Amino acid sequence: MGVLGGMGPAATADFFAKLVRATPAATDQEHLATLVWSDPSIPDRTDALLGTGPSPVPRLVEGVHLLDRAGATLIAIPCSTAHAFLPELRRATARPVVSMVEATVQRLRAAHPQVTTVGLLATTGTVTTGLYQRSFRWSGIDCLVPAPPQQERVMQAVRQVKAGNMQTASRTLGPPVAALTGSGAQILVAACTELPLVLGSRAAGCDVFDPTKALAEDVVVLARRQQQNNLDKESTWTSASA
Amino acid sequence: MGVLGGMGPAATADFFAKLVRATPAATDQEHLATLVWSDPSIPDRTDALLGTGPSPVPRLVEGVHLLDRAGATLIAIPCSTAHAFLPELRRATARPVVSMVEATVQRLRAAHPQVTTVGLLATTGTVTTGLYQRSFRWSGIDCLVPAPPQQERVMQAVRQVKAGNMQTASRTLGPPVAALTGSGAQILVAACTELPLVLGSRAAGCDVFDPTKALAEDVVVLARRQQQNNLDKESTWTSASA
Repeated sequence: MGVLGGMGPAATADFFAKLVRATPAATDQEHLATLVWSDPSIPDRTDALLGTGPSPVPRLVEGVHLLDRAGATLIAIPCSTAHAFLPELRRATARPVVSMVEATVQRLRAAHPQVTTVGLLATTGTVTTGLYQRSFRWSGIDCLVPAPPQQERVMQAVRQVKAGNMQTASRTLGPPVAALTGSGAQILVAACTELPLVLGSRAAGCDVFDPTKALAEDVVVLARRQQQNNLDKESTWTSASA
Repeated sequence: MGVLGGMGPAATADFFAKLVRATPAATDQEHLATLVWSDPSIPDRTDALLGTGPSPVPRLVEGVHLLDRAGATLIAIPCSTAHAFLPELRRATARPVVSMVEATVQRLRAAHPQVTTVGLLATTGTVTTGLYQRSFRWSGIDCLVPAPPQQERVMQAVRQVKAGNMQTASRTLGPPVAALTGSGAQILVAACTELPLVLGSRAAGCDVFDPTKALAEDVVVLARRQQQNNLDKESTWTSASA
């Protein structure tokens, strides 16, 4: 499988570690063959979505092509904001590109069937696109987002994580987290891959859902299914030719 | 830069995370472009060195070629045991392949100049090759290795980490760690990339040195030097053509 990463590199490393942990394996040889392309030169996704920076699409498409040429049969992108450009990336390859947004909504519903209102912690780019809000609404779940000054703090926390200042980021997130839970969020969705690096599994007395882990779990299921299909095809072919 | 990994995948994820942390960067864009090929199908290195399994060299060489073709200008292999095959891998590419053994010995000497005796925790394959013992001896440092029954426990702990059983592995390592410190080791070298996943920075009252981190630090220095050389060449070329 192929991982298009670097957005940021620490979040990519976190996704890779969660992918390994999500794989049932007792020896090295039972793990998934994985190619991770961590390209830190991809322009900032939020800046592009707010119209204040260049489009990341050309570099993202190059990354997809690199993974495709190297033989990846499945591509995952551990960056929520980059999912705004998923249609362009899916057009750039014949391989399936897994959606972190769909993985999150489906796995959250399955794991927390009683939840009717979630609180979204994401970059300003992701919030602006409405990707998560729409997917949750289609599943009958209300999705609360922080008011603009609180959203500015979330974005600031994301930049602090990218600069390696984890403790500062954790403090910066305090007010938006409190505002979301105070407004009725039953669970917080850490929908920027930088955020699970500082939020634990609980914040302000509320469960935190980790989309990075949801994506890793989806990838393991899909990759196993691909392997199984290939084995089935091989055995059909063997019996047909026998 | 290119990372040839999968030996095991969790150790590769750990190396990638340490590489990101070792890079001085405040934004995504200041990080190193990194391609990680985690190939779990590489045959077990210790089995090959003990003559009980197939050689990993053909798969390792394929991995080096994949990274080379994709444009890696520097290659690192976060697996001590695979370093037994470093001459073959260096012959397979014109790119520099960084040695984790050399990185460890040089950085341990610089960070702990008072140390004259280290204790080696490594796979039975690595211990058998004598790679670390020889490099330490050439630097005037005695390198103690566990007696055979204790070495068997270290190997067992490595397999337990590969299977995800961290707590069991930690208990398995107790007796060999105690034996090395009891025999006069002033510092323990966790010279199998699985071991820093369970050993902290101290064990049995003794500092633990982390070769995975040493390799990450060496890679950052070398990659920065390559970037600088390229910039120098570009500016020379620009002035020459101006």
